[in-house]
Amino acid sequence: MVVRTSSSPSTPAEALEAVRRAAPLTQCITNAVVTNFTANALLALGAAPAMCDIPGEAGMFAGIAGGVLVNLGTPTAEQRDAAREAVVAGTPWVLDPVAVGALPVRTALAHELLASRPAVIRGNASEILALAGTGAGGRGVDATDSPDDARDAAVALAGRTGATVAVSGEIDLIVDADREARIVGGSALLTQVTGGGCALGAAMAAFAAVTAPFEAAVAASTVWAAASERAALSSRGPGSFAVAFLDELAALRPDDLEARAGGDR
Amino acid sequence: MVVRTSSSPSTPAEALEAVRRAAPLTQCITNAVVTNFTANALLALGAAPAMCDIPGEAGMFAGIAGGVLVNLGTPTAEQRDAAREAVVAGTPWVLDPVAVGALPVRTALAHELLASRPAVIRGNASEILALAGTGAGGRGVDATDSPDDARDAAVALAGRTGATVAVSGEIDLIVDADREARIVGGSALLTQVTGGGCALGAAMAAFAAVTAPFEAAVAASTVWAAASERAALSSRGPGSFAVAFLDELAALRPDDLEARAGGDR
Amino acid sequence: MVVRTSSSPSTPAEALEAVRRAAPLTQCITNAVVTNFTANALLALGAAPAMCDIPGEAGMFAGIAGGVLVNLGTPTAEQRDAAREAVVAGTPWVLDPVAVGALPVRTALAHELLASRPAVIRGNASEILALAGTGAGGRGVDATDSPDDARDAAVALAGRTGATVAVSGEIDLIVDADREARIVGGSALLTQVTGGGCALGAAMAAFAAVTAPFEAAVAASTVWAAASERAALSSRGPGSFAVAFLDELAALRPDDLEARAGGDR
Repeated sequence: MVVRTSSSPSTPAEALEAVRRAAPLTQCITNAVVTNFTANALLALGAAPAMCDIPGEAGMFAGIAGGVLVNLGTPTAEQRDAAREAVVAGTPWVLDPVAVGALPVRTALAHELLASRPAVIRGNASEILALAGTGAGGRGVDATDSPDDARDAAVALAGRTGATVAVSGEIDLIVDADREARIVGGSALLTQVTGGGCALGAAMAAFAAVTAPFEAAVAASTVWAAASERAALSSRGPGSFAVAFLDELAALRPDDLEARAGGDR
Repeated sequence: MVVRTSSSPSTPAEALEAVRRAAPLTQCITNAVVTNFTANALLALGAAPAMCDIPGEAGMFAGIAGGVLVNLGTPTAEQRDAAREAVVAGTPWVLDPVAVGALPVRTALAHELLASRPAVIRGNASEILALAGTGAGGRGVDATDSPDDARDAAVALAGRTGATVAVSGEIDLIVDADREARIVGGSALLTQVTGGGCALGAAMAAFAAVTAPFEAAVAASTVWAAASERAALSSRGPGSFAVAFLDELAALRPDDLEARAGGDR
Repeated sequence: MVVRTSSSPSTPAEALEAVRRAAPLTQCITNAVVTNFTANALLALGAAPAMCDIPGEAGMFAGIAGGVLVNLGTPTAEQRDAAREAVVAGTPWVLDPVAVGALPVRTALAHELLASRPAVIRGNASEILALAGTGAGGRGVDATDSPDDARDAAVALAGRTGATVAVSGEIDLIVDADREARIVGGSALLTQVTGGGCALGAAMAAFAAVTAPFEAAVAASTVWAAASERAALSSRGPGSFAVAFLDELAALRPDDLEARAGGDR
């Protein structure tokens, strides 16, 4: 159930306003480590999270959801089947290929799912390099390559799959077949908390319910940068940062995003 | 192992005192999103949580637990079998039929489990309507109907199953075969954090270890209302609210509940 | 991939410095309740957590990890197979036998895994008594026996398995075949939050990547004591304590551990 209209939001501010208005049902098939933080981040953003991830329900649910996230962090057999159901429902979906390349089960699944054309692929540089076939993959959730190292791979992957590809890092790089954006800013504390990147993928799925994939990825990255910068100001460490990040996400107004240099080529 | 005595606590204050004294072992077969928050909420309440949810252990464990929660949020095949074992152990148990109606696997399971006579059924209005057979079910954890819309369905469900039925919403409605209570107050922030309602179901299971089902549901709802109101006073948003809610739950004294208008008919 | 060198760190301060320097990849096969807290605690400590716990990947991943945790809190069938793969990879691993003794599936698995010689076994007194064959086991995560009650059992278990055995309690007792240490201090609030002990097991796995098992267990317990004492000073209850604990873990400097009486024989 995509609530996107012909006058699709084009700026992060417009996209945030649209998410707050539509509260899009956002289905997450995601890893056990980050489900709670992801659901709370989606609620704070203004979306309606639902972690429906069992076979026999996931496909049906994807049909009524506005956006779907498939995150391969801890892909049990049931989640793998749930993902296979969900990605063919016709709803825009985001692939987060956690630790792809290094590990065979998820790597095979990621390549299989690519055939169902994700709207957005979001990963760190190592994961994007591995998925594009030009790297060995990371050792887990932490990238050992930088976003710009993955630029050519991201462009190639976008060209081959039709997806928007978002490479997370100190500067987020977002590309599709003919556009390219860099999102600067954001706090490094976001990398010292588990789930910062995974929840960003979920936010892209929420935004993909109300705007086009490239704009959705740019909006989510811009919101993450803004909320994390603000949260860092009132944090004493990673524990209080995670709490403050949810507070700031909920407090963020579309106006707060206007001033940011968003998505220039 | 029900520690309830012949002079069973009848007020929320007495029930809270009894939970603090008995620290009832409370088994939760619950969804992946809220396990951590649920366990921490039970600890803060004074209960002893145990998330024992695999076949071959869940039934045996239910035999020594004081109360059992079966929450259908992310019902894997193993959890479904664990639930089937646990509900026949003779221990009072709470059914939380998350998203029942909309999704076939959990809907079938919920109807199957009803035969084992839950002490309490807790859900939002959409879920209670769906379980009673008079509604289409919600689109997930957020109700699209209000508690009073579900009053007749709750009464019918209580009559048919012998359970106390608790309908969560702005005002919580709690009914059994011949009584009815409304719990007012509480903070809306509780709905902006994942697991507020799921943990409430777990609290009802803890209270069901020390008092009768209707009194258990009223006590848990009253405690949730009191702690959430206090937490809201020191919160800046949903992130800090969830943290403060646990603090306030632990700080709450039975006396704090005396003043509240609890469970009038 | 053990980064331990011939001049292995011998004090908690040296071990903390070594973890910060090496950021050892620490694989956790752990229960659903504590995955998030565990990953955040490892990040705050300076390690690189990875919750790789599915068959077909867990063994391979253990081969590149520096330390592995096997926690039996909610052992699904897939996790049991993943654990079997991981413990034969040759990487030092920690066994946390949650609720062993009381529950048959995990008890059988714990005894089976012992054959693969854990570097460290960490549990509460009831669990250690049960694993050593001299107790009935706890009723879950809360011990009903005190660490000194389990001293003889711990010594026997260490002798039989070659492992360092860490018994958590008000005073942590750590023994191996010929040494014995007691770690005093720490805040009782750590027992009012779910995952304090489980994350301690994960920390022992991280430290086991950079030093010997006995020293790893002592270092982790010492760090937990120091960070929890500091966190208690700025906490209003268990909710804010869990947040502050992560902040203090990240802020802790090796120097802060020098003054503590760590690991006397």
